[in-house]
Amino acid sequence: MDIKLKFDAHGLIPAIAQDYKTGDVLMLAYMNEESFKKTVETKEMWYWSRSRSVLWHKGDTSGHVQKVKELYYDCDADAILAKIEQLGDIACHTGNRSCFFNKID
Amino acid sequence: MDIKLKFDAHGLIPAIAQDYKTGDVLMLAYMNEESFKKTVETKEMWYWSRSRSVLWHKGDTSGHVQKVKELYYDCDADAILAKIEQLGDIACHTGNRSCFFNKID
Repeated sequence: MDIKLKFDAHGLIPAIAQDYKTGDVLMLAYMNEESFKKTVETKEMWYWSRSRSVLWHKGDTSGHVQKVKELYYDCDADAILAKIEQLGDIACHTGNRSCFFNKID
Repeated sequence: MDIKLKFDAHGLIPAIAQDYKTGDVLMLAYMNEESFKKTVETKEMWYWSRSRSVLWHKGDTSGHVQKVKELYYDCDADAILAKIEQLGDIACHTGNRSCFFNKID
């Protein structure tokens, strides 16, 4: 793969997980180079947990695995968009379907 | 407003702009506290340009203003999702509708 993704000073790139059917944005998390490679290889979402400082296979403990349907990067190659199938239909650790459940009035 | 958004070490928070009608993710950029406040006040998207280090009213030069329809923040309060109306139907400086036009096979 000769994609030159731009990882930031911490070696991370933001990745948006979007429900491939409904178009709902479910979460934003970060990938490092290793998690990106694993995501491409396994067609499941792998992130880098900034709070725990570990490679994080989404759904490993919850079962809420994210199956990759399509993967995109943006014009500046510094952001990723993944269209995914959300197993269990819950992306958020709070039990919400999407992490973006807080509306600003 | 008593929302405690978590800005990073650079004072920034990632913001996803999503077409409020189609659900298409159009771009990801960053806001600082001032651009967030201006976004809420004006109901148009303001970002912080990391490359130019300036407050950036999206569409100021291109006319491709983003009208805010709904604004959300995530479970960790460290990411923003804006459902917007994209004037001119082009979000990307390349002339593409979405910045995420590069597909990874």
